[in-house]
Amino acid sequence: MATLEDIGVSAFINIASAFAFLLAFALLRIQPLNDRVYFPKWYITGSRTSPRSRNFVGKFVNLRVTTYLTFLNWMPQALKMSEAEIISHAGVDSAVFLRIYTLGLKIFVPITVVALLILIPVNVSDGTLSFLKRDLVTSNIDKLSISNVRPQSIRFFVHIGLEYLFTLWTCFLLFKEYDIVASMRLRFLASQRRRVEQFTVVVQNVPRSSGKSVSDSVEHFFKTNHPEHYLCHQAVYNANKYAVIVRRRHRLQNWLDYYQLKFERHPEKRPTSKIGFCGLWGERVDSIDYYKEQIKILDKRMAVEREKVINDPKSILPVAFVSFNSRWGAAVCAQTQQSKNPTLWLTNWAPEPRDIFWKNLAIPFVSLTIRKLVISLLVFALVFFYMIPIAFVQSLANLEGLERVAPFLRPVIELKFIKSFLQGFLPGLALKMFLYILPTVLVIMSKIEGYIAISTLERRAAAKYYYFMLVNVFLGSIITGTAFQQLHSFMHQSATQIPRTIGVSIPMKATFFITYIMVDGWAGIAAEILRLKPLIIYHLKNMFLVKTDRDRERAMDPGSVDFPETLPTLQLYFLLGIVYAVVTPILLPFILVFFALAYLVYRHQIINVYNQRYESVAAFWPHVHSRIIAALLISQLLLLGLLSTKEAANSTPLLVVLPVFTLVFHKYCKHRFEPAFRKHPLEEAMAKDLAEREEEPNLNLKAYLADAYLHPIFRSFAAEEEEVVQVRADKHQDPVGSPSGSELSSPSPPHHAYRYEVNTQHYYSYHYEAEP
Amino acid sequence: MATLEDIGVSAFINIASAFAFLLAFALLRIQPLNDRVYFPKWYITGSRTSPRSRNFVGKFVNLRVTTYLTFLNWMPQALKMSEAEIISHAGVDSAVFLRIYTLGLKIFVPITVVALLILIPVNVSDGTLSFLKRDLVTSNIDKLSISNVRPQSIRFFVHIGLEYLFTLWTCFLLFKEYDIVASMRLRFLASQRRRVEQFTVVVQNVPRSSGKSVSDSVEHFFKTNHPEHYLCHQAVYNANKYAVIVRRRHRLQNWLDYYQLKFERHPEKRPTSKIGFCGLWGERVDSIDYYKEQIKILDKRMAVEREKVINDPKSILPVAFVSFNSRWGAAVCAQTQQSKNPTLWLTNWAPEPRDIFWKNLAIPFVSLTIRKLVISLLVFALVFFYMIPIAFVQSLANLEGLERVAPFLRPVIELKFIKSFLQGFLPGLALKMFLYILPTVLVIMSKIEGYIAISTLERRAAAKYYYFMLVNVFLGSIITGTAFQQLHSFMHQSATQIPRTIGVSIPMKATFFITYIMVDGWAGIAAEILRLKPLIIYHLKNMFLVKTDRDRERAMDPGSVDFPETLPTLQLYFLLGIVYAVVTPILLPFILVFFALAYLVYRHQIINVYNQRYESVAAFWPHVHSRIIAALLISQLLLLGLLSTKEAANSTPLLVVLPVFTLVFHKYCKHRFEPAFRKHPLEEAMAKDLAEREEEPNLNLKAYLADAYLHPIFRSFAAEEEEVVQVRADKHQDPVGSPSGSELSSPSPPHHAYRYEVNTQHYYSYHYEAEP
Repeated sequence: MATLEDIGVSAFINIASAFAFLLAFALLRIQPLNDRVYFPKWYITGSRTSPRSRNFVGKFVNLRVTTYLTFLNWMPQALKMSEAEIISHAGVDSAVFLRIYTLGLKIFVPITVVALLILIPVNVSDGTLSFLKRDLVTSNIDKLSISNVRPQSIRFFVHIGLEYLFTLWTCFLLFKEYDIVASMRLRFLASQRRRVEQFTVVVQNVPRSSGKSVSDSVEHFFKTNHPEHYLCHQAVYNANKYAVIVRRRHRLQNWLDYYQLKFERHPEKRPTSKIGFCGLWGERVDSIDYYKEQIKILDKRMAVEREKVINDPKSILPVAFVSFNSRWGAAVCAQTQQSKNPTLWLTNWAPEPRDIFWKNLAIPFVSLTIRKLVISLLVFALVFFYMIPIAFVQSLANLEGLERVAPFLRPVIELKFIKSFLQGFLPGLALKMFLYILPTVLVIMSKIEGYIAISTLERRAAAKYYYFMLVNVFLGSIITGTAFQQLHSFMHQSATQIPRTIGVSIPMKATFFITYIMVDGWAGIAAEILRLKPLIIYHLKNMFLVKTDRDRERAMDPGSVDFPETLPTLQLYFLLGIVYAVVTPILLPFILVFFALAYLVYRHQIINVYNQRYESVAAFWPHVHSRIIAALLISQLLLLGLLSTKEAANSTPLLVVLPVFTLVFHKYCKHRFEPAFRKHPLEEAMAKDLAEREEEPNLNLKAYLADAYLHPIFRSFAAEEEEVVQVRADKHQDPVGSPSGSELSSPSPPHHAYRYEVNTQHYYSYHYEAEP
Repeated sequence: MATLEDIGVSAFINIASAFAFLLAFALLRIQPLNDRVYFPKWYITGSRTSPRSRNFVGKFVNLRVTTYLTFLNWMPQALKMSEAEIISHAGVDSAVFLRIYTLGLKIFVPITVVALLILIPVNVSDGTLSFLKRDLVTSNIDKLSISNVRPQSIRFFVHIGLEYLFTLWTCFLLFKEYDIVASMRLRFLASQRRRVEQFTVVVQNVPRSSGKSVSDSVEHFFKTNHPEHYLCHQAVYNANKYAVIVRRRHRLQNWLDYYQLKFERHPEKRPTSKIGFCGLWGERVDSIDYYKEQIKILDKRMAVEREKVINDPKSILPVAFVSFNSRWGAAVCAQTQQSKNPTLWLTNWAPEPRDIFWKNLAIPFVSLTIRKLVISLLVFALVFFYMIPIAFVQSLANLEGLERVAPFLRPVIELKFIKSFLQGFLPGLALKMFLYILPTVLVIMSKIEGYIAISTLERRAAAKYYYFMLVNVFLGSIITGTAFQQLHSFMHQSATQIPRTIGVSIPMKATFFITYIMVDGWAGIAAEILRLKPLIIYHLKNMFLVKTDRDRERAMDPGSVDFPETLPTLQLYFLLGIVYAVVTPILLPFILVFFALAYLVYRHQIINVYNQRYESVAAFWPHVHSRIIAALLISQLLLLGLLSTKEAANSTPLLVVLPVFTLVFHKYCKHRFEPAFRKHPLEEAMAKDLAEREEEPNLNLKAYLADAYLHPIFRSFAAEEEEVVQVRADKHQDPVGSPSGSELSSPSPPHHAYRYEVNTQHYYSYHYEAEP
């Protein structure tokens, strides 16, 4: 309904805002003050420490003019790193995530060229839009689309031919990509050094037998059933109460650090504080002594509580991490059924220690089924009834509707510029606002479902979000957009009628999706690189909360690529591109711009900002693959429906072959590649075991595995003490302040496992704090 | 459309024919002549040998009058054996198969009582059928059904309440039954003595590496990856050429036996024969010498060919049976992925040697995918387009249609008796005829699909047959029956309209299904016990083909329970009972009679006749379970559709909860019980290993496993020679003729494994002959 002019206005606004974001980013990133917001990854890897300028102003503001002139130089910089470097710098997940964007470019660049060169002339040169009812207003964009082709035209063979071509091309690239990603995964897994998760299996639902502790029965069970391979196990404790004390101690330690720092800066005056509520009244005491004493008291309580948790058999959960003396033994245990009763002794490959979502280990197994049921009902309701508010808002965004609701706005709305703005910008924005809070909700839902690995949990949240996007953004926009004209007729149609109805609406909604791509894809991605929210939060924290360096470390928190949101978004763009490739090819260049820009931005972010909190070794790829396949199927079905309304009866049967081919292709890929993502071949495990046995025949594996899967709360306590020592050591080297990131940038360890342990540490405590 | 009278006539005919069959059976079974047809199982187990009467006539005809008076005494006899005895007599498959019938009785007896007592009064007392269009003629049966209840009646709450009650009752029994069957299976598996398949895994798609034979690479792979558990392996040979020679030798051996017998009976005259075509011309030679010489020549050729097959690396298929030194090792290998490439080194638990369908082992793995695709397309076509001929026949069986097609038949058809007969009997019969050849076709399709175990193959065929029955017998009868009135309106309805349309037709088709149950269920089951076809074939063979005792053994062939046909049939009865329980409860007693009669008949057959050719330990139960669940879902959906046409808007929403509950129940059962049928718990394997190691510490497992999975063709040759010796030994004890079943009833072995081997032998050769 929007005209070409509306789109022009919208494009201008979005390009301008995207440009403004990029400019702001370019200016802000070179300020030393923001260094920890825009380059936190380098702080974490240890190659950046403190602002480089010694000048006082220079510490906060960049004074060199030359750097302002080259403000777009982050783009070539982002492209410099090779894939292998990205893997070692940010992990396989990030590298494969970037491959999705290049896959999008690989798929859509040739499709765009072919579609524009062939389809636009074919569409434009033919007929009119006379067959459409008068009340469905059509825009100029429609003249470039399939809507412009006369019914029964022989030209539809061109569209069908191109649909075949595009499907084959996409499948070809998908196959190649799946192959590459699968072998990347296998190569990475094979090249990995010794890691604790290679030897460990998580056992859930350990049966409680009377007179025996969980630990004993785990020990007995695995000693009996895996006598040659069982090594040791780590019980899991329910440490919620202990956690409260640890949190309190953290706070006290922070205050102590603060006062010690203060005292070091002004050694002439010992800091004092009142011990009453919020330090506002009560007896005045020497702060350092007071906090030291308090910590001592708390340490004792902690030790007691810790003993209690570890020794009380009731606090041991019926879950255990069982370690084996070989990768082979662990691979066997993870893939086999242990007990006659299939709901007991459930074994699964253990996630990395840093990937574990500890809270969910405490969920009793029985409630998991109920949780899954409840959540799936909730997701269903969310997916299907979320439509109502969106439809409402969109009906408002429909200008005629808005005028009817608020007639007093008419004079303003009728201004040509504002009208274009509203029509081009509002619907996309309204939708985006709705979608803003959703990923958080879905992640929480997945947490409630009880997945024990953060990676799984995020993948499940991504799946939910994808269903949501498919039904609400894609189908919902198509149906409700026209629903106010068509709702009644749609409700009374037969099953075969539905793809038709949607198919007919598809070309009419092209303008809506173009504005959506510009708002969400262009401006949204430019906003992503600006990191406005983390920037503000960091500075606010720095101003009000940061007392010590540990606080500054924490305030810097770069986060990781937000898979639950970005993956489904990407998949929506694939869907839009594939569906509109044949129908309204003019939409394709907009998608191309999105893919290219997003690729650059995420490459930059992955190199400079994000710090993945886990490494799932591209475990999300099968989902990406199968959703692009789903997009192909949807596009074929809708084209079938669209063509059937065009009375192109001769040509439509040709299209029926395509979904069958696509499904067979999918099944083949699943069969061929998916086991690489789900299973653990024994050949591989044995080869690594043998190589290791040759290399280090006297390896003490038990010592290596000891405590690897201890609840982080127990370890953070021990680490805390070391940290304190480290912080003090740093003080003496750099007494002015703003020292290097205490634990994280401390003596860069040559041994990979150790550095990994430290990172783990960081995330544990981060995580622990985020979800009390 | 059929009136109560029509049903009465049909019932009379069917009861009469069922009675006639039972009478015939009672008379025929006590004739010694038919002993091998009606009691072959006892010959096979060795407890019956030759006819008991010594009188010449008495050898063929039963002359004792008393036995004729107690002609129905097989019924109590059939009930005598306990379940444990049936398991040891006929296997778990048979025992669990019988449990399906008792499950049917347990489900439907209370449902029938409740439905008849509550629903019939509710239905009869209400309203008329005024809401139906005049042109849909309604029968008296409809007055007892839900059709008789006025629209918007409050009485529908009774129907919904009962649907809830019946669903809960069925689920409760299903749960209990699944539990019992699963523990029966586990108990049986745990109590089994040492068996070769416990130690063996079948490996498919062994990659061919240059310069290495398949045997070598199997050996190397498993020695590397299962170093502590690998014991040995059996290569699989492609022995098609060898098989031809073996078959020829079989024939010659038969002739030799025949002439030797002849010579023994008439020692005064050595038999001679001509060596030309069919023994009709050519040189006359001494038969015994000639055949002995021929056999000798053939033996030499066989030895050469055998060597060639075994030594030629090209005849080794990329399949192997790999044996391990413990059940634990085999369980591990069967459940894990071996190689990085998931299409290579596919391991699966090996079927019993007698269960293997050897021909399919030679199918290259690549073609399996294609075969599966092609067959599934074929099955789809068969399921959905088989309807057309059925619809045509049924439109003929519709009397008005028949009169229109063949007006000259009108005077005959208009006779009241014939009209009733045709209307009651024809539609059921027409359908049954169509269904007669189908199972064979479906088994052949499953064979082409390439399953390597006969049990899997039969289960797959049963699944195909079930889909067929569901679409064609159930839905097809409902839709096409009314299709000639409703086809047009049906084609143009929306998706939600379909359950409605079917729901409305459901009560109208009750009479059709009642006649179907009587024809297929009552008369059909009575015909089953008569074994008319095997009886005739046995006597024909005995007259013309049987030359030696081995031939008579073979002619006796009892077969086994025909799972591909009986399981889906049973499932159809469950579907009918569950769907009609609320709609037209008068149908239920007919189903009850079927279940009771069929239970008796199959109990008798399993005890006296059938000899299972494999033991899958109730592997079909998950299918039975899930199809009864499917029946519940279908009934709920159709009731929902039916009620929505009754404008019972207040009550229908209540029904929506039920499918959700049913699905959750299904998921729970699947999760809880299905692994017992699919996986092999390590705990179990280890326990048996340990027990065995204690019992027989010096067991030579390698010797035990050697040749267990050798292609039967190589073994049947060796066994043949022994058999000849045995046959002669029997001769000397009983020179008059008709001696005991040579190999099978020979010295009843006390050791289970040995008896099993002998049975195996029998089936191998049987099978081999049946599928050249």
